[in-house]
Amino acid sequence: MTSSRASDVTLPDIAAIRAAAARIAGHAVLTPLLESPAVNARLGGRLLIKAEPLQRTGSFKFRGAYNTLSQFSPAARRTGVVTWSSGNHAQGVAAAAQALGIPALIVMPADAPAIKIANTRGYGAEIVLYDRIKESREEIGARIAAERGATIVAPYDEPQVIAGQGTCGLEIAAQAKARDVRLDAVLVCCGGGGLTAGCATALAAEAPDTKVYAIEPAEFNDTGRSLAAGQRVANAPGATSFCDALLAPTPGEITFAINKRLLAGAFTVSDREAAEAMAVAFADYKLVVEPGGAVALAAVLSGKYAIKGRIVAVVASGGNVDREIFAAALNQARN
Amino acid sequence: MTSSRASDVTLPDIAAIRAAAARIAGHAVLTPLLESPAVNARLGGRLLIKAEPLQRTGSFKFRGAYNTLSQFSPAARRTGVVTWSSGNHAQGVAAAAQALGIPALIVMPADAPAIKIANTRGYGAEIVLYDRIKESREEIGARIAAERGATIVAPYDEPQVIAGQGTCGLEIAAQAKARDVRLDAVLVCCGGGGLTAGCATALAAEAPDTKVYAIEPAEFNDTGRSLAAGQRVANAPGATSFCDALLAPTPGEITFAINKRLLAGAFTVSDREAAEAMAVAFADYKLVVEPGGAVALAAVLSGKYAIKGRIVAVVASGGNVDREIFAAALNQARN
Repeated sequence: MTSSRASDVTLPDIAAIRAAAARIAGHAVLTPLLESPAVNARLGGRLLIKAEPLQRTGSFKFRGAYNTLSQFSPAARRTGVVTWSSGNHAQGVAAAAQALGIPALIVMPADAPAIKIANTRGYGAEIVLYDRIKESREEIGARIAAERGATIVAPYDEPQVIAGQGTCGLEIAAQAKARDVRLDAVLVCCGGGGLTAGCATALAAEAPDTKVYAIEPAEFNDTGRSLAAGQRVANAPGATSFCDALLAPTPGEITFAINKRLLAGAFTVSDREAAEAMAVAFADYKLVVEPGGAVALAAVLSGKYAIKGRIVAVVASGGNVDREIFAAALNQARN
Repeated sequence: MTSSRASDVTLPDIAAIRAAAARIAGHAVLTPLLESPAVNARLGGRLLIKAEPLQRTGSFKFRGAYNTLSQFSPAARRTGVVTWSSGNHAQGVAAAAQALGIPALIVMPADAPAIKIANTRGYGAEIVLYDRIKESREEIGARIAAERGATIVAPYDEPQVIAGQGTCGLEIAAQAKARDVRLDAVLVCCGGGGLTAGCATALAAEAPDTKVYAIEPAEFNDTGRSLAAGQRVANAPGATSFCDALLAPTPGEITFAINKRLLAGAFTVSDREAAEAMAVAFADYKLVVEPGGAVALAAVLSGKYAIKGRIVAVVASGGNVDREIFAAALNQARN
């Protein structure tokens, strides 16, 4: 139960993202924009991959976490942070909290990837596991936060989290400029929409001609359907995907308020297409990408978004994947 | 049968490496130096990984190839280049030749990893396969080069190839300086010794207090034993290793002339230790590293080179590995 609501908060703007960039500098990694001339030749376009698996904690989530936690008051730093996450926000918050000396408690689904639970614990956070089907992580988190007087930092529907994730878009714009490249589009993996909203805000300011698209798993296309409906709609109960990072039930209130204004549209990909994108990231970019982190790349490779004659950046949002899942994805891929 | 010999060539120096850096700028990738605070905490030291899998063609070999081929005369560009390689130099030469419009013919072992043969062909090179046990790749290459009037660019024992590989060491020195870090040591994967000799030359000039070590597979420790003997000695016939990139029979004449003067020593790792390093690169750095590319990292992780209290860079030299080999390495790793 975050207290943030689109109606009573100021949406994060480019100034908030620039301030976040200054806060995370030297703490987060300025991740590279990878390119393969061989893949470009195959696709007949130019594809740039923002490599967030190389980010601290293995995903973009450290950006928003560090930006938010570094602004805690001395009192809030003592009472600590509480959040919930399937794994990447968990690791981002845990690592940022550890770096800043803030106690952290994270509510995680019992069926989260083992690597994500182990890493979160490794960053010194206290973990409470819950049942994703039967329990509400928000209620568990809110109860514990109230008991401890701790501050909740929700995974995506928080202005300072969105501003932090927006630094990824700010970097893409700067890195494209440094290569004298005008981007036709940026494709962003979309769960709750924080990364998408942050990148869209950054790019609207820095590269207003560049279109920004949200990419979602087929059964978790809540943002795409919400854009079509003009209001937030939920995914069907019981929907499944192996893109564990992208299983948010609905768009966030704040993230959707931004995304409905700034996005050019949305595309979906199947689990199989995501797995094939993981195999291409492995073979052609030497990058470990997790299922949910591969959907934007999958949208290009599958032709859902046609890249021919275009210059397009995709965000590979994370690489925290168990080795068995990764090996299985390589094995099931076609080529 | 390269015509280069240590006795009658000028060894490449820091000026040659700086000139190479200028030639490859904008063509090669300035690869990042990756770091994991979590791994640093586990090891009690600071470990920086030079991520050459992210280099164009997936290994450092593009550096030396492009540096050499870009200096070809117009006549040599027309008659083309001939070389031999188990795969990474093959891809480096093929891609550099393609970029420069030079015909390339590569002699490759029939048992080279499929990904390396397919990629080399993908860069437009003509490929001649040979039997690694029964035939001499140097003789095959020399014969074809003579027939065509083509220029041979041997994989490591060529001054301009060594100078190109040295740009990797030049970048490590500059990236360490940019982080205000004084490196205690740099560990380099060593086959024929070109990357090692180039990096050692660069670091002797740019960071003279930093020690440089060669890391080899246990049964291919020709450079380590040659350093001990004071002269070039060969590996035992029939030696095997899954580090396919590091199977050179002896140190090069030129590379050893440099390495015996500049190296602080050498260490070996087992195939199992290399596989475990691949698994750590996967889990903690999200980087795909091939067996031979992982030996320097393995030397640190296995404790062969103690990192406690030190700041050490290791070169991960390449990431061209078939998916089955990669999955098997992840599966056999301990953790």
